[in-house]
Amino acid sequence: MNDDRILLAHGGGGLLTGQLIAEKFLPLFRNPYLERLEDGAVFTIGDRKLCFTTDSYVVHPIFFPGGDIGSLAIHGTVNDLAMCGGKSLFLSAGFILEEGFPMTDLDRIVTSMAAAAKQAGVQIVTGDTKVVPKGAADGIFINTAGIGIIDYPKAISVTEIRPGDAIILNGTIGDHGAAILNQRENLGFETDILSDSAPLSGLVEAILQASPHIHAMRDATRGGLGAILAEMAEQSQCMITVDEARIPIREEVRGFCEILGLDPLFLANEGKMVVFCAAGDAENVLAVMQAHEYGKDAAMIGRVQEKGRGRFILNTAIGGAREIDKPAGELVPRIC
Amino acid sequence: MNDDRILLAHGGGGLLTGQLIAEKFLPLFRNPYLERLEDGAVFTIGDRKLCFTTDSYVVHPIFFPGGDIGSLAIHGTVNDLAMCGGKSLFLSAGFILEEGFPMTDLDRIVTSMAAAAKQAGVQIVTGDTKVVPKGAADGIFINTAGIGIIDYPKAISVTEIRPGDAIILNGTIGDHGAAILNQRENLGFETDILSDSAPLSGLVEAILQASPHIHAMRDATRGGLGAILAEMAEQSQCMITVDEARIPIREEVRGFCEILGLDPLFLANEGKMVVFCAAGDAENVLAVMQAHEYGKDAAMIGRVQEKGRGRFILNTAIGGAREIDKPAGELVPRIC
Repeated sequence: MNDDRILLAHGGGGLLTGQLIAEKFLPLFRNPYLERLEDGAVFTIGDRKLCFTTDSYVVHPIFFPGGDIGSLAIHGTVNDLAMCGGKSLFLSAGFILEEGFPMTDLDRIVTSMAAAAKQAGVQIVTGDTKVVPKGAADGIFINTAGIGIIDYPKAISVTEIRPGDAIILNGTIGDHGAAILNQRENLGFETDILSDSAPLSGLVEAILQASPHIHAMRDATRGGLGAILAEMAEQSQCMITVDEARIPIREEVRGFCEILGLDPLFLANEGKMVVFCAAGDAENVLAVMQAHEYGKDAAMIGRVQEKGRGRFILNTAIGGAREIDKPAGELVPRIC
Repeated sequence: MNDDRILLAHGGGGLLTGQLIAEKFLPLFRNPYLERLEDGAVFTIGDRKLCFTTDSYVVHPIFFPGGDIGSLAIHGTVNDLAMCGGKSLFLSAGFILEEGFPMTDLDRIVTSMAAAAKQAGVQIVTGDTKVVPKGAADGIFINTAGIGIIDYPKAISVTEIRPGDAIILNGTIGDHGAAILNQRENLGFETDILSDSAPLSGLVEAILQASPHIHAMRDATRGGLGAILAEMAEQSQCMITVDEARIPIREEVRGFCEILGLDPLFLANEGKMVVFCAAGDAENVLAVMQAHEYGKDAAMIGRVQEKGRGRFILNTAIGGAREIDKPAGELVPRIC
């Protein structure tokens, strides 16, 4: 790494985040669980297979259309467990509060967390609160870690991806990123773009029941659909092709992105995931997703091609083919 | 709660922290695991009893005599699991970094975390990195959550404390708080006061093997020995008496406190714990502790008296008796 200081892009979920993990954390912390570089660690304790994950939430603003830092902190961690095939059981909650933070805002956030936890069927069983002096943090940061239980008999991992696999996306992209940006910058677009923040645990449970051939899942958070598919292509060493025209996107989000010159492919989502499954099961999995509240707009967007060089190719709407790399910069900081 | 804003004391581990938990978090998150208000949650998954805990670390300065924010983030969480009787298996690590944070400092911290994890026999299996813009955080905050496995056949909890129990402390108090304060304020005391930050997992394993009658354990971190004994008296509804003259304290720390008018009873520790055990086992447990690296200065400091009103009475060195309440203010902020 050439830079001698942390950049915003180190937290963007793209190229520099990957470098930071690969060059700083992995060599020193190395173990088989961490090495998988999935959304969570998977291990066996006693007679059960468990998964374990963590995320810190630093989103700004803390209240946004469609959610707040509290609901996001529940959904994000529940979703990371779901991507491992895990049913969320227990969460921890660690709060870092800035001196002077309004108690009414804390009430609102804690109420929102409790409601989100209830909806996702998970309990917050342990916690911690730190307070730092005024100016040492920006209002509130929340960390949640989670433990889930995995009943799916087969491994769910990017290493299970096979040529021929179908790639299914559960709905429209860019809603969360656009909602945050519109609110933060007071851009004043009158369209009512809402974050898609949602718990995907129920949807994942339905998918896993529907097919014994689910190979990999990942939620398209920081860096958006573009970053995660580029990463999964690299990790699986498979070529992935996606048809741009098949990717669902709201008209408001498309318009918002066009005006600002943003690529929705790299805008964050907080309730969107991709599923890699055996081609023979794809229609069935798609139907199950479309029948679920958080998969109504699900679409089959692409396919895994040959093993070899891991590349993500987007067949564009106008008939071209564009290779997508992990984003090098930070499109929208403090998005989650 | 009368205040409408978060105060530093809400993070101090004393009265206001307790109120925040009791009035804000517990009513909304309520469940039997959280309600215990121990250092971690204890539950059974499959055929194993597990414990789960979290802590965020915001210590300032990040490097201090005897440790740094990295080693502290490992020791603190390993110790919380140990206090539940748990052997640490897996940790998560969540980093919040400020834009511009020096990469060399991050290297030093990650190296220190890896060494501390190795010493404690625990693996960091999942993580997360967020970067916030310059000014939105103070350098680096670290959250660790941990999963441990409990093999001890009996419950270890403040609710197991019984009249007659002996109270054993594993060594000198106030070292961490004094080390941080001396460094932070450039007080220039030439004495070499080091933080006592250490993993207590090995010591706890030895204690649990030595006695089947360990009732409760707690580490004396924020708020110091005074805060945790006042809290345990209240939670157990037992009267606790401690002889001040028996509490080990380094001469340098005593002198430091006298000059600054601080009470070492409320200074934070990061490698000190109290053990409540059946009186008949106390001598044996004490001997086992004294034979361990992190229990050399262990001492029997007090006893549990009758059940009834939960009070913590300190028999002072000059022959008086002083009732100790949970501290109302914040003696040293950003201590851990």
